[in-house]
Amino acid sequence: MNTTQSAAEWWALNGALIFEGVGIVAFAVSGLIEAARKKLDFVGMAVVAALTAFGGGTLRDILLDRRPFFWVQNVNWIYGVLVICILAMVFLRGRHIALTERAIIWPDAIGLAIFTAGGTQIALATNSPPIVAVILGTLSAAFGGVLRDIVVNEIPRAFSDHQPYSIVAFVGAWIVVLGAALNWPSLISLAGSAAFIVALRMIAVKRGWRLPEWKV
Amino acid sequence: MNTTQSAAEWWALNGALIFEGVGIVAFAVSGLIEAARKKLDFVGMAVVAALTAFGGGTLRDILLDRRPFFWVQNVNWIYGVLVICILAMVFLRGRHIALTERAIIWPDAIGLAIFTAGGTQIALATNSPPIVAVILGTLSAAFGGVLRDIVVNEIPRAFSDHQPYSIVAFVGAWIVVLGAALNWPSLISLAGSAAFIVALRMIAVKRGWRLPEWKV
Amino acid sequence: MNTTQSAAEWWALNGALIFEGVGIVAFAVSGLIEAARKKLDFVGMAVVAALTAFGGGTLRDILLDRRPFFWVQNVNWIYGVLVICILAMVFLRGRHIALTERAIIWPDAIGLAIFTAGGTQIALATNSPPIVAVILGTLSAAFGGVLRDIVVNEIPRAFSDHQPYSIVAFVGAWIVVLGAALNWPSLISLAGSAAFIVALRMIAVKRGWRLPEWKV
Repeated sequence: MNTTQSAAEWWALNGALIFEGVGIVAFAVSGLIEAARKKLDFVGMAVVAALTAFGGGTLRDILLDRRPFFWVQNVNWIYGVLVICILAMVFLRGRHIALTERAIIWPDAIGLAIFTAGGTQIALATNSPPIVAVILGTLSAAFGGVLRDIVVNEIPRAFSDHQPYSIVAFVGAWIVVLGAALNWPSLISLAGSAAFIVALRMIAVKRGWRLPEWKV
Repeated sequence: MNTTQSAAEWWALNGALIFEGVGIVAFAVSGLIEAARKKLDFVGMAVVAALTAFGGGTLRDILLDRRPFFWVQNVNWIYGVLVICILAMVFLRGRHIALTERAIIWPDAIGLAIFTAGGTQIALATNSPPIVAVILGTLSAAFGGVLRDIVVNEIPRAFSDHQPYSIVAFVGAWIVVLGAALNWPSLISLAGSAAFIVALRMIAVKRGWRLPEWKV
Repeated sequence: MNTTQSAAEWWALNGALIFEGVGIVAFAVSGLIEAARKKLDFVGMAVVAALTAFGGGTLRDILLDRRPFFWVQNVNWIYGVLVICILAMVFLRGRHIALTERAIIWPDAIGLAIFTAGGTQIALATNSPPIVAVILGTLSAAFGGVLRDIVVNEIPRAFSDHQPYSIVAFVGAWIVVLGAALNWPSLISLAGSAAFIVALRMIAVKRGWRLPEWKV
C-alpha cells in the first residue's frame, strides 16, 4: 500500500470528521455562553448547548426524513458536549465570556462552512431540488443558533443582527450544487464550498459588512 | 374534447392551486410585516415570511410522516416568497403597513380556508381518526402564524387575541369529515368546507366577534 | 381461568395506562395554568394544555420516526384534555391556582416517571444507543413543559429554576437501560425506574434540593 495514498484516504475519511468536531464545539460553546448569560442551571446549559450544536442538522434530517441522526450514529458527540458543559460549569467565569466569543469566531466559521456544504450534499443525495438542497444546507448550519435564541427567549440573532452569516452559507452552498451538476468529485465540491464560506465569512467579520436594512 | 368539460377540469386542477397561492402570499405578507415591525434584516424577513407561509403545512406533513413537502414538490412557492420579500425590502414602508394588513384580510381568510380543508383531507387520506384530521387541518392553516410569533418573540396572537380564527377553521374542517363519511365527491367537501370557513371568518371580522374570556 | 392471574394481567395491561392518564392530566393542568396566567383565550388554553401533555412524547416519536403518536392511537387523550380545558374555563379561578399547583405535584411526578421510563423503553426497542434512549426518555417527559414555556414566551422553567426535575428523570432512565442489559422482565425495569423517579423527585421537592449554580 502506498503511504501517500493512505494519508490521502485517511484525510478523506477523517478530515471532515475533524472539521465537523471543530464546528460542533464552536456551536456548543456559543450555546452555553448564551445559557450562562441567562443564568440557566446545569440542565439548561447542557440542553441549550446540545440544541445549538445538534439542532440544525437534526431539523435537516427530520425534513428529509433521514435517520439515524449524526449524534445517534456517533454518540461521542453527545458525550463531548456534556464534557464541555461540565468544564464550563467549573472553569468558565463571566470575565472569560468576551474572550471566548472572540476565540470561537474561527471555529464557528468552520462549523458554518462544514455543516452547510455537508448538509447541501446530503439533501442533494436524496434528490432534493437545488434550491431546497441549498436551503437545507444553510439550515443545517444556522438553525441551531436560531433554536438557541428562541429557547433563551430572544429574537434570533441570525435574523436581526444584520451580519452576513446564513446568507454567506446560502451563497456558498450553491458551489456544491454546481459541483454536482458538473460531476466534480464530491470532495472537491465540498472543500470548495466550505473554503469559500469560511473565507467570505471571515472577510465579512473583519470588514464589518452589514446586510441592507429595511427602511421604515 | 368538450370545451365545457375541459374548463371544469382545468378548474379542478388549477383552482385549488390558485387559491393556495393566494393564501401563501397572504401568510408570507403577514410574516414579513411582523418581521419589519421587529426591524429584522433581510434574512430574518425571508425566514419569517417562509416560516409563516410554509410552517403549518410542513408541521402537518412531519406529523403525518408525509413527503415531499408542498414547497419541495413545487419550488416556485419558495421563489415566490423570496420575490415578495425583495419587493417588500424595496417598496414596503412603515406607512403602508396598516393598509397592507387591511388588504390581506380577505386573502388570509382564503388561505385559512384552503389550508384547513386541504389539510383535513390529506390527514383523512392517511387514515387519521376524524378528530386528528380536523386538528391537523386546522394546524396546517394556523400554525405558520404561531411559529411566526414564537420566532419574533411574542405570545402567539392566535392564542391571545380572542378572535375567532383557528376555531373557525376547526369547525369548518368537520365539513370535510362529514363529506368523507357521506361519500361526497371530494371537490364538494373541500369547496363546502372552504366556503364555510371564509364566510364565517369574514362575518367574525366584520362583527368583531370575540372568544369567551377566562375569568380570573 | 385463574382470577388472580387475570387480575395481574389486567394490571399489566391497564396499570400503565392509568398512570399515563394521571401524568397527562397533570401536564395538561400545568399547561392551562400557565395559559390562564398569560390571559390566553380558549384556543390558547387548549393548545398550550395539549402541547404540554403531548409535546414531549410527540417529539420523541418524531425523532424516532415512529407512528402513530399515542394521542392518535388513543384519541380519548385528546377529548380528555379538551374536557379539562372546558372545566377550567368554567370553574378555575385565579384564587385556585396556587392550590391546583400544589395538588398536581404528585400527579406531575408520576407523569415524569411514567413518560421517562416508557419513553426510554420505546427508544431502546428501536435500537437506540443507551445514552440516546435515556435522553429520549427524559425528553418524552420533560419537553412538553419546555414547549409550554416557549409558547407563552418565557425561558423554560426546566432550564432556569435550578430544581432537580429532568435530571432526576435522566438518572432514573438508566434503570430501564440496566434492566434491558440484564434481561429483567420489562415490567420490572419500568416499575423500578418509575418508582425511583417518583421517590427521588418527591424527596427533591420536600427537601428543596437545588441544582449547582453557574458562578459568574
